[in-house]
Amino acid sequence: MAQKSRILLVGCGGVGTIAALNLEHGNKAEVSCVLRSNFEIVNKQGFTIRSCEHGDLTEWRPSQILDRVPDVTNSGIQPFDYIVCCTKNTPDIRPIGQIIAPAVSPNHTVIVLIQNGLNIEKPLMAQFPQNMVLSGVSRIDAHEVSKGVVEQKQRDLLYIGPFPSQPHDAESLRKSALYFIDIYGAAGRTTCLYKPDVGYDRWAKLVYNATLNPVSALVDLNTGELQMTSVVDTLVIPAMKEVMKVAEAVGHKLPDEIIEETIRSNPIEKMITPSMQVDTQMGSFIEHENLLGEVCREAQRFGVDAPILSTLYSLCVAVQWRTKKIKGLINLNGS
Amino acid sequence: MAQKSRILLVGCGGVGTIAALNLEHGNKAEVSCVLRSNFEIVNKQGFTIRSCEHGDLTEWRPSQILDRVPDVTNSGIQPFDYIVCCTKNTPDIRPIGQIIAPAVSPNHTVIVLIQNGLNIEKPLMAQFPQNMVLSGVSRIDAHEVSKGVVEQKQRDLLYIGPFPSQPHDAESLRKSALYFIDIYGAAGRTTCLYKPDVGYDRWAKLVYNATLNPVSALVDLNTGELQMTSVVDTLVIPAMKEVMKVAEAVGHKLPDEIIEETIRSNPIEKMITPSMQVDTQMGSFIEHENLLGEVCREAQRFGVDAPILSTLYSLCVAVQWRTKKIKGLINLNGS
Repeated sequence: MAQKSRILLVGCGGVGTIAALNLEHGNKAEVSCVLRSNFEIVNKQGFTIRSCEHGDLTEWRPSQILDRVPDVTNSGIQPFDYIVCCTKNTPDIRPIGQIIAPAVSPNHTVIVLIQNGLNIEKPLMAQFPQNMVLSGVSRIDAHEVSKGVVEQKQRDLLYIGPFPSQPHDAESLRKSALYFIDIYGAAGRTTCLYKPDVGYDRWAKLVYNATLNPVSALVDLNTGELQMTSVVDTLVIPAMKEVMKVAEAVGHKLPDEIIEETIRSNPIEKMITPSMQVDTQMGSFIEHENLLGEVCREAQRFGVDAPILSTLYSLCVAVQWRTKKIKGLINLNGS
Repeated sequence: MAQKSRILLVGCGGVGTIAALNLEHGNKAEVSCVLRSNFEIVNKQGFTIRSCEHGDLTEWRPSQILDRVPDVTNSGIQPFDYIVCCTKNTPDIRPIGQIIAPAVSPNHTVIVLIQNGLNIEKPLMAQFPQNMVLSGVSRIDAHEVSKGVVEQKQRDLLYIGPFPSQPHDAESLRKSALYFIDIYGAAGRTTCLYKPDVGYDRWAKLVYNATLNPVSALVDLNTGELQMTSVVDTLVIPAMKEVMKVAEAVGHKLPDEIIEETIRSNPIEKMITPSMQVDTQMGSFIEHENLLGEVCREAQRFGVDAPILSTLYSLCVAVQWRTKKIKGLINLNGS
């Protein structure tokens, strides 16, 4: 049997823990997980997992549990073949590149970003020009409901593909993506597919993530409650149309039906609380830069008018400032 | 000495209580105050007032303290000469006309609205076509800091004038305004001026009330904190420019300096919390319909593009819905 791939997985919330499980269960990888807020409890008693794909697991542990990203340069640590990032992406607070830098071996480690949003690969490509970067777009509904306890209510569906415009040959990029997919799906429990048109899937998700997600956060109403107000018609759908206009200018024509589909996949009765609303309720930072700010910057770059998105983005910037202030990260004396 | 004017004053928060004080102290009016949330305590021990114009007063009482608007049709109550409305104006929750209707004597009672916002007179003119309606624009900074305790930190400056387009002759309108001003200023402690250009003053105040006020409420940052973020430049000033564009289309050209003046009158170090932010913090209804919604409707009527104001307005509609839901006023079963 071939040697197992060495994988470092950063961010073991809902999505990350299920990813670690898939990667370990195929028996083709050994996964080192970097935990932060849940390190103590998981190190002591492992993960508790209730999953529609994996069943109920107690005391589940990946190959290794770490409380920080290891430094591969000055120790006997073998290089990692893949670093899989499943953290929240808040470049305005702490960029991913800064977090994973000690574990990246140039010309070797492939970076996989299972994260939402636009242009998330750009800072990593700039910081690690010798490393390939793969996109992971996940349709899973998995959450860490309490520290170390993960619930997966919806089947995993992960699209993997290389981000465009990398200084690496296409065949190497394709191979590194296909090999990751092989490892991820090896246990045969989940669906992980090769999708080279990374941009399309990312823009398609932004129809939700740049509109319903921040609106829910700003007014503290979930997607079901929002649909009981007039605001879906007066604000959310016009905002979705702006996302589609920007997407088209960038080169991704989304079908008109995506608006209705996006709303239908958040039915009133499910009362789904989007991630940014969960974050504001918890007093956590929001991911507005890559979900909304980058859409506004692309709009500006391509000369597309997107005043609703710009307004929502500015309000999110203010909300993030408030969270920083509450966390004591703003110097109110201005010195 | 002439008979005193009979005045019914509805809404004894900060602005209303100081208005009652001015009206009583000139000795030309007897004021019946209608109280709601503070009736019990004020009925028992009167108002406690700390005022830069009136000094410190304890157990101050107007001529009459009422817990509801009296019905002048079926009792021995003399008609009121003026009804002064100082309540919050939330037509989407309970219209003012509905509140004061029992006390309005046709062809006699003059209605005075000391309230912010646009087109607030329209429903009253429709409901009481035989009564004159006066505009009161107040620059006072007075607040009810706890039930029955009112603080006035800034000198009162009240502009009174008849609303335009009323089916009454100009001279009667002017006289009823001047007589009210005479009563209000009779004690010589405060400034109450005749300002017939009602629209201009109302639009000038909207430069603040349709922008900083709702933005503060939506992101829960006061005007000082907002000025420490980038959002004044990216959002607040562009929104103010939209207000000015709509004002101009309606016929009120505001000077460019009003933007800087509006911001300067809310200096960072004062950390002023606008009324809508106070309301959302208290879980109370907000006055977005007349402060923002009417501006959007005028924009639409005159074909002026105001996408930032429309976005802020939609978000405020959602916030009001949330407050209704929390107060149990939404039927979540949809039946």
